Amino acid sequence: MSKDNAISVAPPRGMRDFLPSQVALRDWATAAILSTYKRFGFTRIETPVLENIASLRGGDGGENLQLIYEVLKRGEKLEKALSEGAAKDELADLGLRFDLTVPLVRYYSHNQSQLPNPLKSIQVGSVFRAESPQKGRFRQFTQCDIDIIGVKSELAEMELIQATSEALIALGFSNFKILINDRRLLSALALHCGFVQEKAALVFIALDKLEKIGLDGVSKELAGEALDPQATAKLIQVLTVLAAAKKSGQTSYVDLKAALPVLDEQAMSGLEKIISTVSEISKGRFSIEFDPTLVRGMGYYTGPIFEVKVPGYTSSVGGGGRYDNMVGKFSGRDVPACGFSIGFERVIDILTEKEFKPQTEERSIVLIVDPERDSGLAVLNAAQELRSGGNIVCIQPRKKDMKKQLDTLLAQGYSHFCVFRGQGSELEVKSLGG
Amino acid sequence: MSKDNAISVAPPRGMRDFLPSQVALRDWATAAILSTYKRFGFTRIETPVLENIASLRGGDGGENLQLIYEVLKRGEKLEKALSEGAAKDELADLGLRFDLTVPLVRYYSHNQSQLPNPLKSIQVGSVFRAESPQKGRFRQFTQCDIDIIGVKSELAEMELIQATSEALIALGFSNFKILINDRRLLSALALHCGFVQEKAALVFIALDKLEKIGLDGVSKELAGEALDPQATAKLIQVLTVLAAAKKSGQTSYVDLKAALPVLDEQAMSGLEKIISTVSEISKGRFSIEFDPTLVRGMGYYTGPIFEVKVPGYTSSVGGGGRYDNMVGKFSGRDVPACGFSIGFERVIDILTEKEFKPQTEERSIVLIVDPERDSGLAVLNAAQELRSGGNIVCIQPRKKDMKKQLDTLLAQGYSHFCVFRGQGSELEVKSLGG
Repeated sequence: MSKDNAISVAPPRGMRDFLPSQVALRDWATAAILSTYKRFGFTRIETPVLENIASLRGGDGGENLQLIYEVLKRGEKLEKALSEGAAKDELADLGLRFDLTVPLVRYYSHNQSQLPNPLKSIQVGSVFRAESPQKGRFRQFTQCDIDIIGVKSELAEMELIQATSEALIALGFSNFKILINDRRLLSALALHCGFVQEKAALVFIALDKLEKIGLDGVSKELAGEALDPQATAKLIQVLTVLAAAKKSGQTSYVDLKAALPVLDEQAMSGLEKIISTVSEISKGRFSIEFDPTLVRGMGYYTGPIFEVKVPGYTSSVGGGGRYDNMVGKFSGRDVPACGFSIGFERVIDILTEKEFKPQTEERSIVLIVDPERDSGLAVLNAAQELRSGGNIVCIQPRKKDMKKQLDTLLAQGYSHFCVFRGQGSELEVKSLGG
Repeated sequence: MSKDNAISVAPPRGMRDFLPSQVALRDWATAAILSTYKRFGFTRIETPVLENIASLRGGDGGENLQLIYEVLKRGEKLEKALSEGAAKDELADLGLRFDLTVPLVRYYSHNQSQLPNPLKSIQVGSVFRAESPQKGRFRQFTQCDIDIIGVKSELAEMELIQATSEALIALGFSNFKILINDRRLLSALALHCGFVQEKAALVFIALDKLEKIGLDGVSKELAGEALDPQATAKLIQVLTVLAAAKKSGQTSYVDLKAALPVLDEQAMSGLEKIISTVSEISKGRFSIEFDPTLVRGMGYYTGPIFEVKVPGYTSSVGGGGRYDNMVGKFSGRDVPACGFSIGFERVIDILTEKEFKPQTEERSIVLIVDPERDSGLAVLNAAQELRSGGNIVCIQPRKKDMKKQLDTLLAQGYSHFCVFRGQGSELEVKSLGG
């Protein structure tokens, strides 16, 4: 067969193949996160990778709606759509999920009668976004979410923050910082500056970019949206005061509260409770800080929102918030809901950068055999004998250059080897390390 | 918000939401399988859920090619395709994988230089087929495969059969039967009967249905394909002899061999080795049997093929075989390859039917609190104190009907509860069971 006829063997653009060592790291991290969450009484649920396209489009997904992978209708339905010259958004009936929150809300609405109340769910799964592949952005990536549906009090936020912090600690992170704000404060701020309610979302989108584009950038962005210039000027004024307060080290909740010209009392008292409680339970291992300019991208948040920053890394390793109105959109009945998502890919990037290697307890032995000489039964029996001691045993044919073979095995992470010398002979296990 | 405006909340047709108890069973089964496979030196790899459509179509996927979910092109490419009145198979550039073998072969071809040789891979993942949803058939389901790429000898088949059998035993199965045949014997049989080489695949497809449609059915099926009636008659004659031999209890390898009019010597000696070795290592816990009419659906098999039957269930709980030519199709260089797939959904169905419940070691305690009265900090500290003893602790608000609440918690699988009586009070943990 000639190479010319070969099919392209790279994964699709923006998507990844994972080598055994990469999967081992991802599996270790997943297990560390899951075991932490399970101790907090969260339980894993699963939804399909595909959703009806209407569900995806109806879920307040913000900019992600532009990034949905749409699945073509099939059979007669496709024929009909094509023959009728259907518009391009009528060619698809299914789509790949772009996050785990929209599917969760649909799931909860459908299965509520069979679910615990409150539901404390864990979701670990692939999501898909047709982004232009930039550095560090993938088109399929793993999300790792916990959500509490059915709890109105701030106990939900506190537990989510506690469980997520403990999971990050289990992953080896320390001294990270949780930033917290409340969407109701942002709304109050926008109204105070003179923006009309309907335009608040545009203000949030601009504000979300503050760290990247600075005050001037935000000002330009708002001008571009043709928003009231007076309101914009007032907002920039408030932001300037806040930035100065931050710069002068007034990063505590109480200090920054004083710099805000307007307050939503309920939101403020909620934040106060969350911040003081989380500070206590952190026992100095991490910190929590009020950030009045924190926005979080998604359109569906209604209350407290939060984000985790790890020292030395600009992008966040997790985020979440309260989204009390979203279940109602699907089920017609409002149910309080709140979630926290670990940025799984970001975590893996950082662990990889740190050259972190998960430790295994078992010895891993390569049993080197000669398939021409050794009988299958003798080889399998020998391997099973080695395995019975709790070892991982991998049978491998002997190669011409044994020295090179052993070096390769060491590099691949095996700890021991044993050259099979025929039925009945003693199995001598040696360390590969030296 | 009125119910009338609500979006449909069911999962897409043929796909499933999994409740916490269902995920727990699936996770338990996955862990049992993975830990067995890892002891045999197999390592997990991962490929994307999406593949380039050309890869999927080029992989000898047989009937599955008709069932691919195709993903619509995006942006300018879609505009271009639509404006040029593209045929329906030019509207998509990606597709959802329909099995894990085609992606594995692409993966191996792409990453070979970074992979162990031989590669012993584990894949657990979702695959997608746009089947008409019948009883027990799902459009998204989990496959669980092990493959050995780079081993020519029958040691590969023996190890795959051994590892899979041990995994099934770890899942609680016993007395299952492994059926084995070789595609080369089937080819020899087809040629012997007088079918031309090019039509052999059609003969196999008909033969694959033998158990379902009987000898008459196979005969009709072949007539429908306009195949040589004389060759068909001869095949039916051989099958009749084989069926009689089976019926009279001659199910052993030696007996059935005698009933075959034609043999491929290399295939026969390979099967002989595999059957005798596996019989030995089974130690009476399961059996292996030559089945000269076993076909296995996929077009890519080239040597031994096998299937697992569990007593009392007609459909198989696993299957696989050798596919030596497939890597060459992708990489231009032939590499021997062989795989075994556990029918994960079938396994879960059987475990569910048996009302199997995975056992957990930890106590699972529900801490019942009054969110109106209890401070968040006091509640979180109490929960953490209970957790420190290795327990799973789930905080839940107190409900009006406490008796009902406790009954529900017991039904949900919790073992213990503790009613929180305020900061500083003793934490009294009681069994929910009685």
